[in-house]
Amino acid sequence: MHIVDIISKKRDGKVLTKEEIDYLIKNYTNGNIPDYQMSAFLMATYFQNMNDEEATFLALAMRDSGDIIDLSKIPGIKVDKHSTGGVGDKVTLILGPLLASLGVKFAKMSGRGLGHTGGTIDKLESIPGYKVELPVQDFIKQVNDIGIAIVGQSGDVAPADKKLYALRDVTATVDIIPLIASSIMSKKLASGADAIVLDVKVGHGAFMKTEEEATKLAELMVEIGRKSGKKMTAILTGMDEPLGHKIGNALEVYEAIETLNGQGPKDLVDVTVEIGAHLLLDSGTESDFETAKIKLQEALQNGTAYQKFLDLVKAQGGDINRLSQPEQLLSKNTVEVLSQKEGYITEINALDIGRAAMRLGAGRETKDDVICLEVGIDLHKKIGDHVKKGHVIATLYTRDKGVKEAEKLVLEAISIGDEHKRLQLIKKTIK
Amino acid sequence: MHIVDIISKKRDGKVLTKEEIDYLIKNYTNGNIPDYQMSAFLMATYFQNMNDEEATFLALAMRDSGDIIDLSKIPGIKVDKHSTGGVGDKVTLILGPLLASLGVKFAKMSGRGLGHTGGTIDKLESIPGYKVELPVQDFIKQVNDIGIAIVGQSGDVAPADKKLYALRDVTATVDIIPLIASSIMSKKLASGADAIVLDVKVGHGAFMKTEEEATKLAELMVEIGRKSGKKMTAILTGMDEPLGHKIGNALEVYEAIETLNGQGPKDLVDVTVEIGAHLLLDSGTESDFETAKIKLQEALQNGTAYQKFLDLVKAQGGDINRLSQPEQLLSKNTVEVLSQKEGYITEINALDIGRAAMRLGAGRETKDDVICLEVGIDLHKKIGDHVKKGHVIATLYTRDKGVKEAEKLVLEAISIGDEHKRLQLIKKTIK
Repeated sequence: MHIVDIISKKRDGKVLTKEEIDYLIKNYTNGNIPDYQMSAFLMATYFQNMNDEEATFLALAMRDSGDIIDLSKIPGIKVDKHSTGGVGDKVTLILGPLLASLGVKFAKMSGRGLGHTGGTIDKLESIPGYKVELPVQDFIKQVNDIGIAIVGQSGDVAPADKKLYALRDVTATVDIIPLIASSIMSKKLASGADAIVLDVKVGHGAFMKTEEEATKLAELMVEIGRKSGKKMTAILTGMDEPLGHKIGNALEVYEAIETLNGQGPKDLVDVTVEIGAHLLLDSGTESDFETAKIKLQEALQNGTAYQKFLDLVKAQGGDINRLSQPEQLLSKNTVEVLSQKEGYITEINALDIGRAAMRLGAGRETKDDVICLEVGIDLHKKIGDHVKKGHVIATLYTRDKGVKEAEKLVLEAISIGDEHKRLQLIKKTIK
Repeated sequence: MHIVDIISKKRDGKVLTKEEIDYLIKNYTNGNIPDYQMSAFLMATYFQNMNDEEATFLALAMRDSGDIIDLSKIPGIKVDKHSTGGVGDKVTLILGPLLASLGVKFAKMSGRGLGHTGGTIDKLESIPGYKVELPVQDFIKQVNDIGIAIVGQSGDVAPADKKLYALRDVTATVDIIPLIASSIMSKKLASGADAIVLDVKVGHGAFMKTEEEATKLAELMVEIGRKSGKKMTAILTGMDEPLGHKIGNALEVYEAIETLNGQGPKDLVDVTVEIGAHLLLDSGTESDFETAKIKLQEALQNGTAYQKFLDLVKAQGGDINRLSQPEQLLSKNTVEVLSQKEGYITEINALDIGRAAMRLGAGRETKDDVICLEVGIDLHKKIGDHVKKGHVIATLYTRDKGVKEAEKLVLEAISIGDEHKRLQLIKKTIK
């Protein structure tokens, strides 16, 4: 087998075999195939695409390039969720304890990643004492003991995907649906979960701008997972504005705590409950979708979900006393952003809000950037809300940088007009 | 300017500016743009193409990446020719002395290259003593003294092209017409010639399989040259069988000597005279094409062309006494290939004949391979000739390797049937 033949074959629009895809990934991972040949292959794939079977082979080959998490010592069905990335998305922080409070096993290894804010792991680190690194046997024991653990990725999961993703980023080959799908699924398939819900974001604040694209991606990921024996669901949810009100690491923990105490914003609760209900069904805990949703709502209202969150934080060494006054986790320096006019909020550009949070120091642009956990943005208004001129529409939690830029970005991101819009949040379900 | 933006722009089918192409080539040559980004760009270009203007900017940027040969100390119009590569193509060996014998300045720097046989320079080295390396001032003095010099490439001509070509070769991006055109033209534009004839080969033995493709390539190269102030002609000639009878380095010198003595095979003479006539016109030596052809034919017949060849060989240190019996340049080991049936030759697959010569040691597969100059193939028959069963159709000149393989390839390459075919050799002229 020769790499030039494989590049030519894809270039000419032919379908690759499992053997060819295995050869490609194995030899790319071990360095026998250099970046310059892989990037030509990637660009050929941009134009010629891959079919579902090729994308599945690719996901499996990337999964098999590294460690596969073995959760067999945790009895029962383990669940996982993945979001394709949205501004203000703190669903995992809520969903994990919520599901665990209802008896579902939530064994989550999560990445840090790049983005407007940190990943789930960074967010949890804003709780003093919370240890994100746990030996695998302790991780498994904790899930068996209290039903939940959320830790940083241990081991070398899907190194082929890491290498490939870095290359795609610098060769204008990110935006290829079968490659996005197999990248996400290679890691999910290595995660050890039996049932997975994918939250595919769609809208101007998401990577997928149209429902058509998002549907394609979602269907393909569901197909890849199912072919590998996983129970799969994907939902398409809107990212036309940030999810919830708070963006930034400690701010998102704050809003998660509010939500776990029954005080969450409607959009955040809706998405969390929707995902949760699918996983209650897939884990065999409930058999009716509407009943499942009611159970989840109850657990948020009656304190059991929050209690499970406290159990989690405590088990991983976090100081739960600090959670009773979560505002103490935030920066003391705040700047109020005032509305320049009266009317209804018609648009909140999520990407610009994300960029504003980044300017304040909430996210990483490169792997080595240091995140400031206590900064971020609290949006007081959502699309459809009414606002008066001079009233506070957002509060910035700041430290020493990016305040003016962030203020400008927030003001530009928010459009105010006469139209009283209502967004549809959950757009589609793919089972 | 960012390379990822340039890749994306080409990927999305947009036209690049001169500044973008200059940036690309300059930074690729100096190593600021890594191979993996360039190969993504090349594959995007495979799918999105380049227009004539972009190809011209690319040729000029590659020309300017290295040394440009200054022939201004040679008075008058200097001419050059280039063939896109055919099996048995020894036209330069004949055309140079032929034109110089009629007063046209032929200052040729030639490469070695990879292929079924060596390049012009390798072929000349089969003449004992012939020095292919000459200091530039001696090269110029020789052209001023005797009208001709044929030497190896000195200096660093179009290093961007060298680097790019090596990358295209291993990333399935060779076959892109604007890149082929700008690659050839970057070197031609650096060669210092004022008038250039391009011999674009077409047919199953050539890189361009169809007349349509070959025409596109030829027109684009003529356009690039003309935009840079050169007098340009391209001819499309058939490569449905090898050119002439002899393939291999010393064998081709042998056939060149025969041709310069008026004993050349018709196809070889026709192509040489056709190219020569264009250059006699472009150099202002003749004003009528048919008269020019007659002059060239006469110079081949009356010994003046051969005398100029002897002057050339002598001036560059070659032993002209060896040329009176050129068969001494060939290997003494020969194998006769016998026809398996009677009939007319209907096909001689030039690529297979080339491969057979390669197996005997006549060519290089990689840069570091050592060529055996004395081996090769003498085809006694051409398409349209009649042959009897058991008669010799080819003689292999061999040394210690590849004889059986070569014999098999030669037999497979030659088809014998009932049809009495006539080929059209010169298919098109693009002025």
